[in-house]
Amino acid sequence: MHAFRSHTCADLSAANAGETVRLAGWVHRVRDHGGVLFIDLRDHYGMTQVLCDGDSPAFKTMEKVRSEWVIRIDGTVKLRDESLINPKIPTGEIEVYVRDIEILGEAEELPLPVFGELEYPEETRLSYRFLDLRRESLHDKMILRSNVVKSMRKRMWDADFNEFQTPIITASSPEGARDFLVPSRLHPGKFYALPQAPQQFKQLIMVGGFDKYFQIAPCFRDEDPRADRSPTDFYQLDVEMSFVEQEDIFNVMQPVIQGVFEEFGDDRTVDPNWPRIPYAEAMLKYGSDKPDLRNPIEMQVVSDHFRDSGFAIFAKLLEQDGTEIRAIPAPTGGSRKFCDRMNKFAQEQGLPGMGYIFWRKGEDGSLEGAGPLAKNIGPERTEAIRAQLGLGEGDAAFFLGGAPSSFEGVAGRARNVIGEELGLTDKTKFKFAWVVDFPMYEEDDEGKIDFSHNPFSMPQGGMEALEGDPLQVKGYQYDLACNGYEILSGAIRNHKLETMYKAFEIAGYPASEVEKRFGGMVKAFKYGAPPHGGCAAGIDRIVMILADTANIREVIMFPMNQRAEDLMMGAPSEPMNEQLRELRLRVLPQED
Amino acid sequence: MHAFRSHTCADLSAANAGETVRLAGWVHRVRDHGGVLFIDLRDHYGMTQVLCDGDSPAFKTMEKVRSEWVIRIDGTVKLRDESLINPKIPTGEIEVYVRDIEILGEAEELPLPVFGELEYPEETRLSYRFLDLRRESLHDKMILRSNVVKSMRKRMWDADFNEFQTPIITASSPEGARDFLVPSRLHPGKFYALPQAPQQFKQLIMVGGFDKYFQIAPCFRDEDPRADRSPTDFYQLDVEMSFVEQEDIFNVMQPVIQGVFEEFGDDRTVDPNWPRIPYAEAMLKYGSDKPDLRNPIEMQVVSDHFRDSGFAIFAKLLEQDGTEIRAIPAPTGGSRKFCDRMNKFAQEQGLPGMGYIFWRKGEDGSLEGAGPLAKNIGPERTEAIRAQLGLGEGDAAFFLGGAPSSFEGVAGRARNVIGEELGLTDKTKFKFAWVVDFPMYEEDDEGKIDFSHNPFSMPQGGMEALEGDPLQVKGYQYDLACNGYEILSGAIRNHKLETMYKAFEIAGYPASEVEKRFGGMVKAFKYGAPPHGGCAAGIDRIVMILADTANIREVIMFPMNQRAEDLMMGAPSEPMNEQLRELRLRVLPQED
Repeated sequence: MHAFRSHTCADLSAANAGETVRLAGWVHRVRDHGGVLFIDLRDHYGMTQVLCDGDSPAFKTMEKVRSEWVIRIDGTVKLRDESLINPKIPTGEIEVYVRDIEILGEAEELPLPVFGELEYPEETRLSYRFLDLRRESLHDKMILRSNVVKSMRKRMWDADFNEFQTPIITASSPEGARDFLVPSRLHPGKFYALPQAPQQFKQLIMVGGFDKYFQIAPCFRDEDPRADRSPTDFYQLDVEMSFVEQEDIFNVMQPVIQGVFEEFGDDRTVDPNWPRIPYAEAMLKYGSDKPDLRNPIEMQVVSDHFRDSGFAIFAKLLEQDGTEIRAIPAPTGGSRKFCDRMNKFAQEQGLPGMGYIFWRKGEDGSLEGAGPLAKNIGPERTEAIRAQLGLGEGDAAFFLGGAPSSFEGVAGRARNVIGEELGLTDKTKFKFAWVVDFPMYEEDDEGKIDFSHNPFSMPQGGMEALEGDPLQVKGYQYDLACNGYEILSGAIRNHKLETMYKAFEIAGYPASEVEKRFGGMVKAFKYGAPPHGGCAAGIDRIVMILADTANIREVIMFPMNQRAEDLMMGAPSEPMNEQLRELRLRVLPQED
Repeated sequence: MHAFRSHTCADLSAANAGETVRLAGWVHRVRDHGGVLFIDLRDHYGMTQVLCDGDSPAFKTMEKVRSEWVIRIDGTVKLRDESLINPKIPTGEIEVYVRDIEILGEAEELPLPVFGELEYPEETRLSYRFLDLRRESLHDKMILRSNVVKSMRKRMWDADFNEFQTPIITASSPEGARDFLVPSRLHPGKFYALPQAPQQFKQLIMVGGFDKYFQIAPCFRDEDPRADRSPTDFYQLDVEMSFVEQEDIFNVMQPVIQGVFEEFGDDRTVDPNWPRIPYAEAMLKYGSDKPDLRNPIEMQVVSDHFRDSGFAIFAKLLEQDGTEIRAIPAPTGGSRKFCDRMNKFAQEQGLPGMGYIFWRKGEDGSLEGAGPLAKNIGPERTEAIRAQLGLGEGDAAFFLGGAPSSFEGVAGRARNVIGEELGLTDKTKFKFAWVVDFPMYEEDDEGKIDFSHNPFSMPQGGMEALEGDPLQVKGYQYDLACNGYEILSGAIRNHKLETMYKAFEIAGYPASEVEKRFGGMVKAFKYGAPPHGGCAAGIDRIVMILADTANIREVIMFPMNQRAEDLMMGAPSEPMNEQLRELRLRVLPQED
């Protein structure tokens, strides 16, 4: 017989009754029922109840055993009494009477119990991650992640993609975030960097003559702490294709992502209709470039109803250039209490407030628009608004005005809250949307033009477009939104060197700077670059959505805490003097 | 029609004759046949011949096109004349008459031609890797690597393993080689390290209750330059299992590795018999712990034939303790010329020489042992040696004497050369062997005991064995040899803390040092560690063997040069002052 087991802890059923078996695993729980010891024995696969009494030669050792000890037992499979059958586990029909036991690994008193999954402070859970991982909930999430990544790979292979590994120790490539640096010992004073993404490499692979690349790629960013992201690294499904247009990428990626969500979405269904929504339309209708389409609410422009109206604030606002009034329809939200609560929400979000109208049956039995705003603009305009928004009795609408950029964010969040609170958002579905036509550039408060997205994207209209107003230039760049999260981002690349120089020049980078920062790619584009494009999907985020958790540390095997420390391994730590000497580095004392 | 292509450059055949098609790709070669321009158009998939003459509206643009420009053409598929059919390529029956052409990407004069694959200095090839990658030979090796890794993953999944990603930014873990350090910005003065291997993490995954782990894992070692390894990182198929013994690992890994070699070995066949060879036996028979079993030569101990013999050097040697005479039989090597060449080889390898006997037909027609050594020991002993080695006319044997450790290495290399030169080594096969029973410890020149292999291995005989002579302790550790290369290494781990402390103590590490160096694992072993073991297979090495190349840079997409520089991306490079300031680091001036 095998030294440790003849079966796993999930294998045995009534069919094995009478067999002599060997099992090994962790002691999940010990119960002493008056001279009969019961142990729930747990391994990776499942749980089996084993027991013994004073008649067994194993009894004396069994008595010593505590939670989370690792043991091996030999015994006989017995059918449980009908009344003791546990239908919840596959091995619930049987138990194993123990005749021999070996202790394979003892455990000290546990800083964190496995059985029962009591809540514990995250620092304890991270310090003893190996215990936390034994809990069923976390164990299952790790298996989920592993299966999601496996499924992604299989789907990419089936679509004729090759996976290639790109360098992890490489050159600094300033793409927005901070690089992690790696000092070179062979070249003291010089540093490598960990890649923020394989962006340049995947483009170089295309220039190198390969057609369809993907990689489950680790990406490294030295980020300031934030709850929903890792402070050091994350994984993306990185994709690039040659000789493609935007729709080609969509047609390749939809089956992959949709397939993964169908496979692992449990009882949530996937809407196969993935609309293409221009960025400007997304901001208008949903107040977000990652709209949650499970929520049916679409905002509308209602400026005309407020122009020269009795509601002075909006009427006055509209006299300024670039202002607008937008309505958030709220079907079934037609109570003063709800409307006041939403108004307060807007105030908490930094706006002066959110005007509203709600429709009710008036005293004469007819439909009546209520609230201070309706009073100010009068029944005719109120009715025109109602008709435009398609609302009726028991519904409400909220109104925001000004320069759209000043209120769009709050409007988007208000739309989410309204959808949630009124139960309009369909939690049983995954709804996707391709958000397209992102502006290439944005203007900061000081009027400086910078890239708004990926600087490597091809501007729509090419060189000609770049010679006009930069803020009007759209890029062939796109995001994929799922249930209000951005889960993928990509672009058709700018593979023409002169267009690339021009695009960077507009953002204030002279050609010399482009060559310095992206030297490898610039050089490559001089020797026959194909049109190409691709995308990257966030794996941690996708698994989080599938696992229905907001904590990224629940979907990573050995995560850092939010201060970028590995509490289990003790990283980062002080280096040895000899290491610093070899690198010719000195750590400076703290200044303040 | 698609913007860039209706077909790839490998798609068209006689069946498409008459169709209007669109193709895109690189200009592999341009030929001007008196007013008719021929272009071999190349993409990831293959090559298609396109042509046009002065009658085509595309002619003027076609004339401008040079090697490695990227173009898109529209044209008509035409059958080639019978005499012009090229059976070597799938599209060899047709050509495409070009009616429209678009230049998608121009190329400057090439620093490295793609067509013809002329030899170029490696520095040029690495600087322009994107051009080198377009060459068929390198392109094919990248696809091979991608397919090998894919196959490994599929096979591991089929064996019910989960792939888990372990941290890349982590704690320093001194496992023999130098760590790459990563300074922490949030904790100035402290450093992370890149993992030399996921050794501790995979063991922690087992302690965390998972059963079968694998990962295609990047490993980072700050190595001094050597031709056949990367100076920064490499990939391994990393594997760990719980509740297993050594044979379980072998039984899992053989189908995976054998399958990969069968799938990608081209016309080389895989011997399904994988013997287990104890380390001591491997050193004796093959002079190597990674024997090439394609070579049938097995060395033997022949000390007795030389004791008190007329060959004074050996006879004297044998009077010392721990000495031995070993013979390398060399069937068909029986010529003075060959024997002298091998003797010279041994001298080049630092030995005084290698005695030999060769057997020929004597003047009287009987078998005769020839050479100075035979003369010294006389015909009786010569015949006894021949009989022991099973040699005959036309064969030879070489002899080495002394402490085995002083000549085993040279003996092993001599065995390889003999097998090669005499054509005994069967190049049509892959032959594998599990080398087992490695000693746990070795003694250095100063008598200091250190680990000879992996310090985390379980000593055979456990605690009891550790209390005896450490140099006699064998570990449950093993290598897999393939055709003379070590392609995998592994061990059953020492999961018992007290045994681990003892094992380290013998090598001179007190418990405090073990806790400091391997804190995460030591802590974990206190809370119920299962018996576990695993291995790691070298992916770069396996692909090198399959691709039949000795240059590791031929199987890596973007390799460093031997000075650990990325010539294409310009790494490592000087950091920006601001980066160093944030890390609170200063680079010290060179001392000498």
